[in-house]
Amino acid sequence: MTTDSSDFEEYADLGATTEDAMEIAETSMDRVRELVPNETLADRIRGKSVHATGDPEFQHLIRFTGRTETEPIRAGARAVLDERPIVTDITMVREGITGRGHDCTVRKAIGNGAELAEQTGMTRTAASVLELDKQGVYDDAIAVVGNAPTAALALADCIEDGTRPAVVVATPVGFVKAAECRTRVRAVATEHGVPAITNVGRRGGSGLAAGLTNELVHVASDAREGSVTLSVEGADAT
Amino acid sequence: MTTDSSDFEEYADLGATTEDAMEIAETSMDRVRELVPNETLADRIRGKSVHATGDPEFQHLIRFTGRTETEPIRAGARAVLDERPIVTDITMVREGITGRGHDCTVRKAIGNGAELAEQTGMTRTAASVLELDKQGVYDDAIAVVGNAPTAALALADCIEDGTRPAVVVATPVGFVKAAECRTRVRAVATEHGVPAITNVGRRGGSGLAAGLTNELVHVASDAREGSVTLSVEGADAT
Repeated sequence: MTTDSSDFEEYADLGATTEDAMEIAETSMDRVRELVPNETLADRIRGKSVHATGDPEFQHLIRFTGRTETEPIRAGARAVLDERPIVTDITMVREGITGRGHDCTVRKAIGNGAELAEQTGMTRTAASVLELDKQGVYDDAIAVVGNAPTAALALADCIEDGTRPAVVVATPVGFVKAAECRTRVRAVATEHGVPAITNVGRRGGSGLAAGLTNELVHVASDAREGSVTLSVEGADAT
Repeated sequence: MTTDSSDFEEYADLGATTEDAMEIAETSMDRVRELVPNETLADRIRGKSVHATGDPEFQHLIRFTGRTETEPIRAGARAVLDERPIVTDITMVREGITGRGHDCTVRKAIGNGAELAEQTGMTRTAASVLELDKQGVYDDAIAVVGNAPTAALALADCIEDGTRPAVVVATPVGFVKAAECRTRVRAVATEHGVPAITNVGRRGGSGLAAGLTNELVHVASDAREGSVTLSVEGADAT
């Protein structure tokens, strides 16, 4: 574990360790369930998006890329059970990933590829993704982009060039390339059979990306305990 | 500096170090300025909220507590120039604070007060705030709460008991106590003359809190260079 596991109680009830925190986590999920259906694994991700953004309407902005709506969730949870690395774009997202319920390493891309960024003028996060990809880090990984559209675009290029993450979670926020980078992720993910969880529109961000990734961890925990089946047949069991 | 300064390019153009990043930062602020007025220091904070959330309507959810709308921004920027500590609730928010443009220490509350949390059952973030407050950390500090409503409520209790932060930035997100904790922060801040920047509603989060704090740093940088005056008379110069 490279992540600081001390501050995720708003992201997964796995993280609630005190009496008050557990009560808050339970009440919070109760309120979300009044606002979002809770029938399928996809509903869990939609519910988490509402929880992370505080906005009931956000459930309608989530998109699943895969043969079925639940494929990216099952693929993500299986990658968690297989202890595949979780690779985030920036430190903020890494710090939002729960330290419990999994034995995956959690690492950030930023900090790699400095030379490439300097030579080309590309953003440091985009250069970081390309550098880690060269090292094979993204194959079968849980690839999470919460902040930088250019990192998501770089990841899409890598997928086009043959890289195969287990799942992509991409929710960059903002006015420049944010919606566009997610459209491109969905296009290459569809074309190359890579499961992906994204949103439409300009909203999103690090907290959302961390929250959705934590829900994959949560689904994996439930699968480990037998309350969720990750096979295609049992995909929609909750 | 205790913060990782490597990943803040989406939060302040101070952070754009490559050609592409600088172009994105400029285009991004141009788009925000088409959507938000850019006349006063308060407009800058409103614009930053739009930038951080990707939502033009978020500008209308920001609230300023002080004798004037710009007082909390001037107080925050002065605290940055005075190199007062920036104290965040959780690690994610700390990691979102820019490493440039200031010489403030940036620290997180979480990780303190473990014994208190265990004894009382209160959340770890609330216990952390109470513990740091006992050490006098919050007086004259830039107190930032991006995630945990209970941390904001604890901070409000501290203000009621005599603690005087230079400014409070509070934007917890969610369905349990998030809107309520900010209402309470505004009430105690008004009563005790503590400047505060908050939002209304259930939305918010770590990225927003980091973004607004980074804008205080940015205003301080502009004041240092003479393009902004922090005195009351010049409060609305941009």
